[in-house]
Amino acid sequence: MKTLAVMQWSRPETPTLLGMWLLLIVSAKIAFHRMPTARHFFPESAVLIVLGLTAGFAIYELWTVDLYLHPDLFFLYLLPPIVLEAGYFMPNKAFISNITTISLFAVAGTIMNIFLTSCFIFAFQNFYNFNITIVDTLLFSTVISAVDPVAVLSVFEEIHVNKLLYITVFGESLLNDAVTVVLYHSFHSMVRIGQAHLIYQDYTMSFINFFLVSCGGILVGTVFAVISSLGVKWGATVPVLQPIICITVPYMAYLCSEIVHVSGILAIVVCGIVMKSYVTGSMEDRADITVKYTLKTLSSCCEAVIFVFLGFSIFSKEHKWDIGFCVVTLVTCFAARFLVVFLLSWFVNKYRMQKISLRDQTIMAFGGLRGAICFGLVLTIDSEVVPTKPIMISTTLVVIVFTVFIQGTMIKPMVSFLNVKIETAYSKSLFQSCMEHSFEDAMCGIEAIIGSHGQFYWKNRMDKWNSQFLEPALSRQDMNRGRKLVKKLTDIYTDEQREALLKRDVSVLDL
Amino acid sequence: MKTLAVMQWSRPETPTLLGMWLLLIVSAKIAFHRMPTARHFFPESAVLIVLGLTAGFAIYELWTVDLYLHPDLFFLYLLPPIVLEAGYFMPNKAFISNITTISLFAVAGTIMNIFLTSCFIFAFQNFYNFNITIVDTLLFSTVISAVDPVAVLSVFEEIHVNKLLYITVFGESLLNDAVTVVLYHSFHSMVRIGQAHLIYQDYTMSFINFFLVSCGGILVGTVFAVISSLGVKWGATVPVLQPIICITVPYMAYLCSEIVHVSGILAIVVCGIVMKSYVTGSMEDRADITVKYTLKTLSSCCEAVIFVFLGFSIFSKEHKWDIGFCVVTLVTCFAARFLVVFLLSWFVNKYRMQKISLRDQTIMAFGGLRGAICFGLVLTIDSEVVPTKPIMISTTLVVIVFTVFIQGTMIKPMVSFLNVKIETAYSKSLFQSCMEHSFEDAMCGIEAIIGSHGQFYWKNRMDKWNSQFLEPALSRQDMNRGRKLVKKLTDIYTDEQREALLKRDVSVLDL
Repeated sequence: MKTLAVMQWSRPETPTLLGMWLLLIVSAKIAFHRMPTARHFFPESAVLIVLGLTAGFAIYELWTVDLYLHPDLFFLYLLPPIVLEAGYFMPNKAFISNITTISLFAVAGTIMNIFLTSCFIFAFQNFYNFNITIVDTLLFSTVISAVDPVAVLSVFEEIHVNKLLYITVFGESLLNDAVTVVLYHSFHSMVRIGQAHLIYQDYTMSFINFFLVSCGGILVGTVFAVISSLGVKWGATVPVLQPIICITVPYMAYLCSEIVHVSGILAIVVCGIVMKSYVTGSMEDRADITVKYTLKTLSSCCEAVIFVFLGFSIFSKEHKWDIGFCVVTLVTCFAARFLVVFLLSWFVNKYRMQKISLRDQTIMAFGGLRGAICFGLVLTIDSEVVPTKPIMISTTLVVIVFTVFIQGTMIKPMVSFLNVKIETAYSKSLFQSCMEHSFEDAMCGIEAIIGSHGQFYWKNRMDKWNSQFLEPALSRQDMNRGRKLVKKLTDIYTDEQREALLKRDVSVLDL
Repeated sequence: MKTLAVMQWSRPETPTLLGMWLLLIVSAKIAFHRMPTARHFFPESAVLIVLGLTAGFAIYELWTVDLYLHPDLFFLYLLPPIVLEAGYFMPNKAFISNITTISLFAVAGTIMNIFLTSCFIFAFQNFYNFNITIVDTLLFSTVISAVDPVAVLSVFEEIHVNKLLYITVFGESLLNDAVTVVLYHSFHSMVRIGQAHLIYQDYTMSFINFFLVSCGGILVGTVFAVISSLGVKWGATVPVLQPIICITVPYMAYLCSEIVHVSGILAIVVCGIVMKSYVTGSMEDRADITVKYTLKTLSSCCEAVIFVFLGFSIFSKEHKWDIGFCVVTLVTCFAARFLVVFLLSWFVNKYRMQKISLRDQTIMAFGGLRGAICFGLVLTIDSEVVPTKPIMISTTLVVIVFTVFIQGTMIKPMVSFLNVKIETAYSKSLFQSCMEHSFEDAMCGIEAIIGSHGQFYWKNRMDKWNSQFLEPALSRQDMNRGRKLVKKLTDIYTDEQREALLKRDVSVLDL
C-alpha cells in the first residue's frame, strides 16, 4: 500500500518527452495516410517499424542511448487498450458461430505449432554454432509461435477479407494467449528445474494450469463485465463518469488477471464482449460515441507506438546472430504454420457447414503474423537459466520483421491473386434485419423440436436472461434501437414512402 | 534523453492500485449524486474532502502510511485537464467582453490581496508563538491568496449564477496564475537571498518577469493552438487520431510552459480558447463529441481525485499548529478579499456599461475559494530557507477547508437569500441568433464611423483573419453550422411551418 505515498512523481521533462514521442508517431501515421502510393504497397505496421529503426539509429548516433520496447510498458500499458478495442468491437455473432473452429485453431493449432517448430529446430541443431537443449527449443518455439493480435489487426483491417477468414485468424490470435502463457511458464520452470528432475506431476500440473488460466481469465472478464455494466447503469446520474467506468473496469480486469496469473488478454476480451451490449444501452448517445471513439483512438495510438518501439529494438548494438539458427527458425515457422492450418482445416471442414476453402486456408496460414507479444515474452526470459537468450531475442526480431514485412506486404497481392472472397461494406436494410431475426427464431424453434441445444437455443436463452438481469438498462437500449431504426427509416425511404408507411400502407415498400 | 530508456516501468500492482483508487472515487461521486438530500446541502468538493479524510485515517490506522497530494502529481497530471476543459468550454464572447474587468481583478486584485493579507498577518505577529519576517509573510500571502479555478468551478457549476458573475470569478481564478507564479518565485528568491541583500534591480526584475511570464504563456498557448489546429486539419485522413491531437497538444503547451518557466495555466487556457473553433470545424461530429466528452470526463475525475487527496493531506500526523496564526490568517483572508472586491468593483463600475451590482460583488467576494493550487505551492516551498514551512502547510489547509466547506456550503443559500440573478438555461431561438448577429454587425459599423477600435471591431477583424487562415477547415465548420441550424429548424418548427419556410413564406414565423 506504500506505492502511492512513496511513488516518485517525475518532473515535467518525462511527460513532455513521452508526449513529444506520441505526437511524432501520430504525425508519422498521418503523413503515411496522406501518401496514397505508399499506402497501396506497404502495410502501416512495416512503415512504422522502419520509422522506429531510423529514429533508433539517429538517437544512438546522437546520444548513444539504446532504446527498446520494455516488456512492462508493452504488457501493462500498450497491449490492454488494443485487445479491449478488439473485444468491444468484436462481431459477436460471427465470433460465437465460429467459436469451435477458433478455439481449435487457438488451442490445438498453437500446441501443434509449438511442438512441430521445436522438433524441427532441435533436429537441425548441427547447423548452429551453439548448443541448445530440447526444453530450450520448446520454450523458444512457444515464444515465436503465438500469432499476434496487434499485427493481425493492423494488416487485416486494411484488406477487408471475408468475415469468416477475419474472425478465424483474429479470434485465434486472441484466444491463443492462454495456451502461450501456460506453456511459456511451464517450459520456463522446466528449464529452471532442469530436464532430468522433471516428474510426472509437472506435466499434469501444466495441463491443469491451462484450464485454470483460461477459465480464470474468462471468469475474471465476466465478473468485471458485470461490475462495469452495473456501474454504468448506476452512474446514469453523472453521465460524464460513464466513459471512465467503461474503460477503467476492463483494464482492471486485465491487471487483476495478470496479478493472479490467469490470462489477462482473455479476461479483457471477454469483458469487452460481454459488457458491450449492456453499457451501450445504459449510456446516452454522446457517452457511447465517446467510449467507442476513445477506444479506437487509444488502440490506434498504442499500435503505432508498439511498432515504432519494435523498430527501436531492431536497431540495437547488442544483437547476437546465428545465421543457421535464424534461417532454420524462419523456414520452420513458415512451414509449421502452413502444415497446421491445412491439417486442422481439413479436420474442421468435415464437421462445418460453411467450409473453409483452400484459398482461405492459404491466407490464414499466410496471415499468422508474429508481433510484439513474442518480443515481450522473449525479453522476460530469465537469462540466468537460458544463456542463449540474446540469440533468441535477435532471432525473434527476425521472425517478427519477416512476418510483418514480407507476409504483411504480400498478403494484399495474394488476396487478389487467389481471388479470395472480400467483405463488401454495406449496411443491412430493414428487410434484411427483419428476415434475419425471423430466421433465427425459426432455427431456434427447429432446434427445440429436434431437442438439440445449438447456438440458436443458447442465444435465445441468453437474450431472455439478459432482459431479466438488466431490465431498466435494456428498456433504454430498446429505446436507442428504436431511435436507430427510425433513423434508418428516414435514410432509406423517401418522404412519400414514409408517410405511406405511417398509414400502414406497405405496398410502397420495395419488397 | 535517457529518460525513456532508463525509466523504471512498474509491475501490475501500481496501475492496479491507481485504477482501484480512481474507481473508488468515481463510485463515491456517483453515490453522492444519487443522494438528493446530500446534494442539496453540501457541495461535492466538501463531501470528497471528507471521504479523503476518512480514507486517510483508515489507511493510517491500518498501514501507518501518510498519504498526501504530491505537488508533481497535482501540477503535472491533475491540474492540466481541468484548466484545458475550462478553456475549451469557456464562453468566449462573455470572456472577451469582460476581459478588462477580469484582468483587473486577476492582476491588481491579486496583488492588492497579497499585500493586504501580508500586512495584516505581519501586524498581528505578537499573537503567534514563532517569529516571522515580512518576506516570509509576503511569500505565505502569495500562496494563500490565489483563487483556485478547480474549487471555483466545482462550486459555481452547481449553482448556475448569472454569466457575468461566473465569468468574472472564474476568469480571475484562471488569469491570476501568472501573478501568483511570478510573485511566488520572486518572494521565494528574496527569502533565499535574504532581505538585507536585496537591491533595486531585484524589484524591477520581478516586474519585468510578470510580463514575460504572462505574455510568454499566452504566446506558447497561441503557438500550440495553431499547431493543434493544423494537426487536426491535416489529420482529417485518419479521423481516429484527431482527438489525441486535440488533447495532447494543449497538454504539451502546458508542460513546455512549465519547462521554460512561463505560466502553464495561461498557456493551456489560451490554447483551448483559440483552438476550439478551428478544431471543432475540422473534425467529424463523432470526433468532436469525443473530444468534448473526454475533456469533461477527465476534468471531472481529476477534480474528484484532487479533493480526495486534499482530504488525505488534512489527515496527517505531521501537522504543526499555531492557533493565533490560523485565526489571523483566516480572518485576514476573508476580510482582504471583501475589501479588494468592493474597491475594484467600485472602480470598474465607473467605466462599465453593465454595472456589477452589490449583490454580485458579495457573491464574488464570497466565491473566492482557495484550493489545491495553494496547497501545491506551499508544498514546493524550500523548508531549508523557510523554517516555518510546516506551520504554513497546516494553516493553508485550514484556509482551504474553511473556504471550501463554509463558503462553499453557504454560497447556495447566500445566492437565494440575496436574490442574485440566476442564469436561466434556454437554447437561443433562430430569431435571437440572427438578431444578435445583425446587432454585432451594426455595432461594428458604428465603431467604424466613430473611429473607435472596440471589441466589435476586433471581433470582426479576427473573423476575417480566421476565414483566410484556415479556409478549408472553416468551410467545413460552416457546413457543420449549417447542419446544426437545419437541426434547430427541425426542432423548432412544425412540418407545415417548415414547408411554408421553404416556400419563402415567413408569415408563419411567430415573430
